[in-house]
Amino acid sequence: MAELNEQKRRKLDSSNGDSPRVLINNENLKDMDNDILFHFGLSTTGNDLPKMFGDVKFVCCGGSTHRMETFANYMLQELGMELPTGQSLSNICSTDRYVMYKVGPVLSINHGIGMPSMSIMLHEIIKLMHYAGCTDVVFFRIGTSGGLGMKPGTVVISEEAVNYKFQPVFQLPILGEMKSWPTTLSKEVAEEVQSCCLPGDDFDAVIKKTLSTDDFYEGQGRLDGAFCEFTVKDKMDYLQSAHDNGVGNVEMESSCFAAMTNRANIKAGVVCVTLIDRLEGDQLSTPANVLHHWEERAQQLVARYILKKLKQHQQQQQRK
Amino acid sequence: MAELNEQKRRKLDSSNGDSPRVLINNENLKDMDNDILFHFGLSTTGNDLPKMFGDVKFVCCGGSTHRMETFANYMLQELGMELPTGQSLSNICSTDRYVMYKVGPVLSINHGIGMPSMSIMLHEIIKLMHYAGCTDVVFFRIGTSGGLGMKPGTVVISEEAVNYKFQPVFQLPILGEMKSWPTTLSKEVAEEVQSCCLPGDDFDAVIKKTLSTDDFYEGQGRLDGAFCEFTVKDKMDYLQSAHDNGVGNVEMESSCFAAMTNRANIKAGVVCVTLIDRLEGDQLSTPANVLHHWEERAQQLVARYILKKLKQHQQQQQRK
Repeated sequence: MAELNEQKRRKLDSSNGDSPRVLINNENLKDMDNDILFHFGLSTTGNDLPKMFGDVKFVCCGGSTHRMETFANYMLQELGMELPTGQSLSNICSTDRYVMYKVGPVLSINHGIGMPSMSIMLHEIIKLMHYAGCTDVVFFRIGTSGGLGMKPGTVVISEEAVNYKFQPVFQLPILGEMKSWPTTLSKEVAEEVQSCCLPGDDFDAVIKKTLSTDDFYEGQGRLDGAFCEFTVKDKMDYLQSAHDNGVGNVEMESSCFAAMTNRANIKAGVVCVTLIDRLEGDQLSTPANVLHHWEERAQQLVARYILKKLKQHQQQQQRK
Repeated sequence: MAELNEQKRRKLDSSNGDSPRVLINNENLKDMDNDILFHFGLSTTGNDLPKMFGDVKFVCCGGSTHRMETFANYMLQELGMELPTGQSLSNICSTDRYVMYKVGPVLSINHGIGMPSMSIMLHEIIKLMHYAGCTDVVFFRIGTSGGLGMKPGTVVISEEAVNYKFQPVFQLPILGEMKSWPTTLSKEVAEEVQSCCLPGDDFDAVIKKTLSTDDFYEGQGRLDGAFCEFTVKDKMDYLQSAHDNGVGNVEMESSCFAAMTNRANIKAGVVCVTLIDRLEGDQLSTPANVLHHWEERAQQLVARYILKKLKQHQQQQQRK
């Protein structure tokens, strides 16, 4: 598995120069006259997807609708874009399942809570990028998480996502059989994002493994759910074992995100702030304004990465 | 398993007369000075939960935020409640993860997409009901689904929820080990809801098994996701096999919902309209206004059940 991941990583990391289109490995789509991206409320015949989305280079997602709206407005400011008087960013999705904002080459979209919700969003956004003819797209998950053995507010950039047995795989039953895929993430992207954490910043950014779970309470060893059938010692043993296996944070989406971007040959990074040290407690009692300030840190690092990449691209174009 | 389910069913169905409080099987909560229901933005010290929620008798949840707001306003009308001029229902949750509306004894709350999202909502709502001292609470999931072998627009009331192998269990890894729980639902509630479908209604309501999956595309055998590695025949064989095993519809939350309400000794029902016949196709191309009209059907049946129960309760009180 480790070798396979390294091979895949190199493949992903070397694809930048070739302007690869987002790959769709599904012959069935070729025979469809119209493809309805149901949860977005968009379709291939009802919308001119290449015109609307053809210039997208960065797809940034996170769980919360509000956070992704904030990120879109933050990117507007960071990109130095000014909207005409009386205009503002508006949600592109016409259903209430997801929200999507577009700011130049940046798409900001929420994925809800958990991998099933992430999976629907990714199926539709990958198809959307494909239909729009997008090339060289980098995907980010910008999220929140519980940390293991680090100061709350620290940003963890995922080296890879692991399951409850600390294995780098994502599993999903398809037609009655359990399938699994590797959950590698781009090492190049992770290191570049980390390098965007500057000496003047009041927080650290570390590269660690990320544990993805299917529940926030029992599934993450919390003692404070509606049910709890394990002891404090059981919990601490498990979290310590995760920590000893190189896990830096715990959340609920990265395995699916890594596996699906991998399958579509899309370079991807996961950047999550830690809101708590799970080796110290379960309850999130930090005031909301402090949590929001911490959330901005992950957004900040990804914004800096995006600006750096756009600048590099501009310089390359000027040299041509 | 079948016997166990029947036993559990009888236990659930017979609990009505005893005014049981919502049961919390977690000793750790007793030692906590404050319990923060993080995803709702409520807490035991910050809010007077018994005063706010003590009279709740029905917790109705569904995936979409908008649908649950609509349901709350629909219940307002059905209960004959009139708000003072200049007042309207407002969302109780202070985070953007979930929305919650209260209309007298009815709580209307969304659970997002998928079981991990459902699980967080249930942990927190079960604790909320417990802290509020609620008794005799019935939980409903009012949702949308894909049907198997029936006219789109038909309402399926779940007999039980089954997993990808058509087994009536919900599985979740806890501290490195896979745990499983039965996914029984109240037979009494199912039959009573079905009896609320009247001869004049322009739709049918059937009691069938419900298949819960962790994905909308590959996980439900759809050919139109970003990826598809199976054939049309593989898909049809699987869906037909589900149908042959008594499965009437496919969705993404009921297994978790049934397992967790079971664990908390809460009577529960799942009432979902089918938006498509999956034996006929994958894409949801029915116009949005028709889909919305169909969605009202499941809401209507649950509303009638609630009104009937409240009337029965009132009559009982009058006789005393």
